[in-house]
Order: sequence, then C-alpha cells, then structure tokens
Amino acid sequence: MQLFQYQVLYQFTYDVFKAIGCSENDAATATEVLLSADLRGIDSHGVARLSGYIRLWQAGRINATPSIRIIHETPSTAVIDGDAGLGLIVAPFAMQVAIDKAKKVGTGWVSVQNSNHFGIAGYHAMMALNEDMIGMAMTNASALVAPTFSVEKMLGTNPIAVAIPAGNEPPFVADFATTTAANGKLEILQRKKANAPTGWVQDQEGNASTDANILKKNGALLPLGSDREHGSHKGYALGSIVDIFSAVLSGASYGPWAPPFPAYIPMPENMPGKGLGHFFGAMRIDAFRPATDFKQHMDNWITRFRAAKPAEGCEKVLIPGDPEREIQQSRMVEGIPLLTTIVEDLKNTGSLFDIKGL
Amino acid sequence: MQLFQYQVLYQFTYDVFKAIGCSENDAATATEVLLSADLRGIDSHGVARLSGYIRLWQAGRINATPSIRIIHETPSTAVIDGDAGLGLIVAPFAMQVAIDKAKKVGTGWVSVQNSNHFGIAGYHAMMALNEDMIGMAMTNASALVAPTFSVEKMLGTNPIAVAIPAGNEPPFVADFATTTAANGKLEILQRKKANAPTGWVQDQEGNASTDANILKKNGALLPLGSDREHGSHKGYALGSIVDIFSAVLSGASYGPWAPPFPAYIPMPENMPGKGLGHFFGAMRIDAFRPATDFKQHMDNWITRFRAAKPAEGCEKVLIPGDPEREIQQSRMVEGIPLLTTIVEDLKNTGSLFDIKGL
Repeated sequence: MQLFQYQVLYQFTYDVFKAIGCSENDAATATEVLLSADLRGIDSHGVARLSGYIRLWQAGRINATPSIRIIHETPSTAVIDGDAGLGLIVAPFAMQVAIDKAKKVGTGWVSVQNSNHFGIAGYHAMMALNEDMIGMAMTNASALVAPTFSVEKMLGTNPIAVAIPAGNEPPFVADFATTTAANGKLEILQRKKANAPTGWVQDQEGNASTDANILKKNGALLPLGSDREHGSHKGYALGSIVDIFSAVLSGASYGPWAPPFPAYIPMPENMPGKGLGHFFGAMRIDAFRPATDFKQHMDNWITRFRAAKPAEGCEKVLIPGDPEREIQQSRMVEGIPLLTTIVEDLKNTGSLFDIKGL
Repeated sequence: MQLFQYQVLYQFTYDVFKAIGCSENDAATATEVLLSADLRGIDSHGVARLSGYIRLWQAGRINATPSIRIIHETPSTAVIDGDAGLGLIVAPFAMQVAIDKAKKVGTGWVSVQNSNHFGIAGYHAMMALNEDMIGMAMTNASALVAPTFSVEKMLGTNPIAVAIPAGNEPPFVADFATTTAANGKLEILQRKKANAPTGWVQDQEGNASTDANILKKNGALLPLGSDREHGSHKGYALGSIVDIFSAVLSGASYGPWAPPFPAYIPMPENMPGKGLGHFFGAMRIDAFRPATDFKQHMDNWITRFRAAKPAEGCEKVLIPGDPEREIQQSRMVEGIPLLTTIVEDLKNTGSLFDIKGL
C-alpha cells in the first residue's frame, strides 16, 4: 500500500485523459469524477479503473472526442446521445441538463444512451446540492446479477444515488448498488483470498456460495435481499427499474446486453440499443416548499436519526453519506492509499503515453 | 375462511364509506383503491383494514369531507394538502395532478401532506399506465423499522411502487415495502403462531430474533437487507428517501413522528408536520422516446427476463407484477377469501351504521 496526495493522482490521471485526446475541459471533468470515488473511499470505482477505461479506448469502444447531444426533449425531460464518450464526461453533461430544466420548470429528468461507465453515481447526484436541488443518478452496467429464481446473469449492480441538501447538517447522500454487496467488495475478498459471507453470491446451480471467485465459475451476484425469503425480489425489482429508466427509456442496451467494462470481453451480439444507459433527476426544493423550511426540517430529520438509540455494541446511527464524507476529509489530508498492484498498473498505463509522475 | 365475490365486498365497503359521510364519488374511489389490495393478494392492506380507517374517523383523525387542494406548484411539481382526508381519496387526486402535469411538460411530481394511509402504493402508480406513462408512488407510515445500528423504531415500512407500461406483455409493476418483510407478513405468522425467519426482525437489544410478536416487546422490523453485512444500510437509505420525499418535501410528519394507523395509539408529541406524507410521479413515455418503440423494447426486456435460465428447483423467472396479476385474475372469478375474524370485524363495523350484506 502506497499513499498518494490527491494532486499527484489528479495530474497523472488528467495527463492520461489528455493523452487519449480528451479536451482540457473534458480531461479535468473525467479526472474529478473518477477521483471522487477514491476520495470517498469507493476504491473499486476510482483511479484503479483508469487502465480499464484506456483499454476500452484502445479497443475503439470509447470516443475521446464525443459530440454529446440532446436528441429529444420536453420542458422537463431530455434524452441524450453520449456518442460513445467516457461516461465520466457524458454523465455530468446530462446532469447539468437535468439541473437546467429544473431551474425552469421545477424538475428535470434525463435518460442517456450510447455512454460508458460513469464512475460513482453519487458524484452526479451531488451536483444538484449547490443548486438547492435534490439530485438523482443511476446507471445500468455489465450483467453480473441473477434475478430471483434464476442462475443467469441478467442485470448489472445498477446503482442508485440520491443526494438531498440540508441546512447546518451535511447533506444526505445515499449511493448504493442494488445488490447485497457491490462487485468491488467481492474483489477485495479475492485479493485477501477470503470467503464471502453467505447471501452475497450463488453458484451456477443457484445454490448459496461463499466462494469469492464464483463469478468466474458461472456464479452470480445476488440482488439486495439475497434470497426470496429475505426480499431478493425487491432488489431484483430495483435493479430492473434502474435498467429500464437508464436504458429502455433512452435507447441504450439493457439487461444481459449491457456492454461489458473489461475490453477483452466481446460485445454482446444483437444489442438492442446503443452503449450503456444512465438516468438523472434534479428536483428544485423550492418547487415544493421554501428551501429554508426544507433545510431546517432536514436538519431536524438528521439530528433525530443521529440520536436514535444505538443497538448493543454499536456506537451510533449513521446518516447516508457520513462514512464517505469522513473518508474524504481524511484522504484530502493524509492522501489516497493505493495497492502496489494498482500503482504498477497505473505506471504501465502512463508508460503507454510516456507519462510519469507516480 | 370465507369467499366473497368482489361486488359483495364492494357494495359493503362503499356503504360504510358513504355512512361516514364520504360523497358518492369519494366512497367509490376509496372502495376501489382499498379492494385493489384484496384483488392483488395484498390482504393486509385491503378490506381487513376497513375497521381501522373507521376507528381513525371516529377518533377525529380522518376527515370524510376533505377539501383537498394544491398549496404550491410549478409546471412539473405540486404540493397538496390532503385536509386529513382518507389517503385512499387523497392519493388518486394527487396522482391525477402528477399525470396532468406530465401531459403538459413531460413529467409531474407531487408531494402530499396532511393525509392518511393510502392503501397499496401499486394502485396509484398503475394509474399512469393507461396514459402511456411510467407511474411512481410512495408513502411514509407509522414507525416500525429500526435503522441499521439502532434499536429505535424510526421509519415505517415505506413502500415504493413503480409501474411501467409494455406493449403485448402485461406491464411491469413493482410494489414493495423497503423492509425485508412487510408487517402484513409478520401478522400472518402471528395468526399461525409460527416463527419468523431470521433477518426479518430484531429484539429490543438489536439481536436477531425469530419471534413474530417481537414488535410488541420493543423489537423492530429490519430494513431490506436485514443486517449491515447483507446491505441493511441500503434498505435504511431507501426507507429514508421515501420518508423525505413524502414528508419533508411536503410538510407532513416524518420519521418517528409519522401518525400511527391504530387509532388507540396516541398521536406523537411535537409533530413537525401535518399528517402522513406521500410522493407521486408520472413520466410520459414519449417525453423520452416514441411510446411504440419503448413498448416494443419493454416487451423484449420482459420476454428475455422470462426466458432467463431458472435455478434448480425453480419453475421460472417472474416479472414484477406477475404474481399479483395472476391472483387478481383468479379472485375476480373465484372470489376473495377472508378469515372468519376479519368477517366478524367487518360485520361489527357494518353494524355501527346498520349496514348488512356480508
């Protein structure tokens, strides 16, 4: 494990995005979005994925100079064609359109086709906070999850993020995969050669499994709820809603046809739409009630929930967003820890473009 | 167990709502919404609750002749004051406002204060289907659920419903509590004197429990995910989002202050808002892409998911809404089964107003 200052990783990542042809603005945006994951402690979605994005660009699946455009709109909605651009760039563009529409008619809702992985959903949802809006972001993703009663991988981990402003309290920021555990958590166990808890994955027959490598053996991640008795049909429904809002509504590729992140996996045959899909929403608080009233009540909500009696052995009740904010505060000062294998991988990526600095 | 034809229960329920002073239109709406739960097999939310609504009316907590009105609006949003009316009447009114706004600007979003329990969320979401819209409905509810790391009941079972039209296939209709198991499921086990599976409830110290009566002993329902290791923080976040959209956005009473459904429980002190809150959304499909295209792709989505390989011992993969639709088809023909205790309870309610017919 090595510690890197944010600025060091920023410069390196920016240089790499510039090297594949991104404009200065786009490289800055992509870097900020990507590293927001490292800052918030969602290490699986941060700079560790940089080489993956570059391999997609090498494979011709990512367009570094996309012409992102609105292909259909109403006062409160839009569909955007990402032109196969980096999701890290397409998503903030689309979220801004949602925010602009909310300014005019109260809310804005944008579905996106022809995009790629967009980093952490939370970043995009949080763009609404400074505008006194509630922000939402979701995306479909490569199929790793079996629906309830099935052994076939049909859905991605399809995250949902919702960011809600408060007053004196920090904002409420939920950002979660619609699976029991995100794939990144499984990857951590693989590195440690540890078992997964039951309820995270199943084997190729649909039996409970604790093998952290089971996805490579035709196993699957499980929807939030784990099994039918514990509500996996609800997690399956949530993941499906994300898939439909992101991809069926926009004309992206959905379900098992969602394009894979690893560039070595061939694109699915007979894709029913273009690229990955996302869905964004922005709701102006004062389209419902005065923002000051709302924020005062959010402070009250947050304070009351923080004061809820803890269970035995638990320190305190957390508000969604608390852990990530604490990690961010610490990493901005202490630096961002990266595994040696990730550092090597980054150096290799840099060397493709003669970029040093790590 | 006794079987009743839908029309018989309809007439009885309609007469009771008329007897407390509802207009003919309102009585018809309330009856249709309430019985939609029985038809769809969600027995805990149907006619079995009629006496509960009447007790709330007797306690002066429900206004049978509400003046429901929009108190704030923008082109795509509204806040509605339900004037303490039956949620069964307030909710369809509010959903219609969302639909009307969607007709004009693409989407409509309505937050409701000063309401009461609204039956099943699915009914309201499904109102959008005939308009070629996606419908959403959620509500907060009396606190029965402990947040992750807590033993205090802070949230209701706060359901989310999303209804999405398809073409030749039946619509996708998800309608689920944001808990591992709905309270109704626990009540069924109580009647059977059976234990609950682990992961549904916890005791007053926050330990896992299988006691179906644990809520009466300071226990709590668990958020979807059951425990931290299985993602209960995600269920807690979902339930919180429902609470905030329904109640903080509208000015209703939120979290542990949500008004209780049983009329014998005193109203919480220092309520921060008015009554229960709901949240509704309607998105016109053709605000995103032509409805015929979308429906064709939804048919493809549904067909593909139905064809997903089943797990060993499982018959087939279901689409959200399948089980409820099958029950509805059967109950419209065979009748609706009611427990003898429920029938007695209904007869007692009828006798208050000299209404027979069961």
